[in-house]
Amino acid sequence: MTCATRYGFLADCPARLTIEIIADKWAALVVFGLSDGPRRHGELVGQIGGVSRKVLTQTLRRLQGYGLVERHAYREAPPRVEYRLTELGRTLVEPVAALTAWAEQHGGAVADFQDAHGTSPR
Amino acid sequence: MTCATRYGFLADCPARLTIEIIADKWAALVVFGLSDGPRRHGELVGQIGGVSRKVLTQTLRRLQGYGLVERHAYREAPPRVEYRLTELGRTLVEPVAALTAWAEQHGGAVADFQDAHGTSPR
Repeated sequence: MTCATRYGFLADCPARLTIEIIADKWAALVVFGLSDGPRRHGELVGQIGGVSRKVLTQTLRRLQGYGLVERHAYREAPPRVEYRLTELGRTLVEPVAALTAWAEQHGGAVADFQDAHGTSPR
Repeated sequence: MTCATRYGFLADCPARLTIEIIADKWAALVVFGLSDGPRRHGELVGQIGGVSRKVLTQTLRRLQGYGLVERHAYREAPPRVEYRLTELGRTLVEPVAALTAWAEQHGGAVADFQDAHGTSPR
């Protein structure tokens, strides 16, 4: 059974809901950021340029709520907290990497098009 | 040269900008909706459950501005307008399909996690 056919995504389809989860720039960047292993909050802020601490916290909580990320607090002083992908979250690494590879390969062509047609928002 | 390394996405990197373009649920769904061939506006509304005509129009214009979608008006009465992926846009079909396949395969596990942990927003 698939909901994503040529007849479209039904609005109440699990696949559709999941695409709505993932098709979020911060979610994709956090999954990418955690794909090499656990990271602390501050490390992710540094890794993902332009994300605020607050938005990162919200995104991490959201991904935890989906079962994609887990938070691990070490019993140390001062306390150390790390975030990591769950087993389910790790299944997302490959599709996110495909998107990233596309962006690397074709980002320049998009920028060129925007320059040539005056459609850049910047 | 790549910007998306283990050291992170720089905020001014073309790949990062492109991920921001694409990591949008409507953009991903429109690319998916056009992957089999040209579609009229009303066909896309029907295919993508839950999108309003206005939001679809905005998404199509945005994708046109990136050079990913083109609008073709046939000289007919009444006028017929179709949207299709450009050559650049078609390069996106494969990564978007990878995301869709993930959603189909793992959407149920996310829903199960949410039910078990009471983290569903619904």
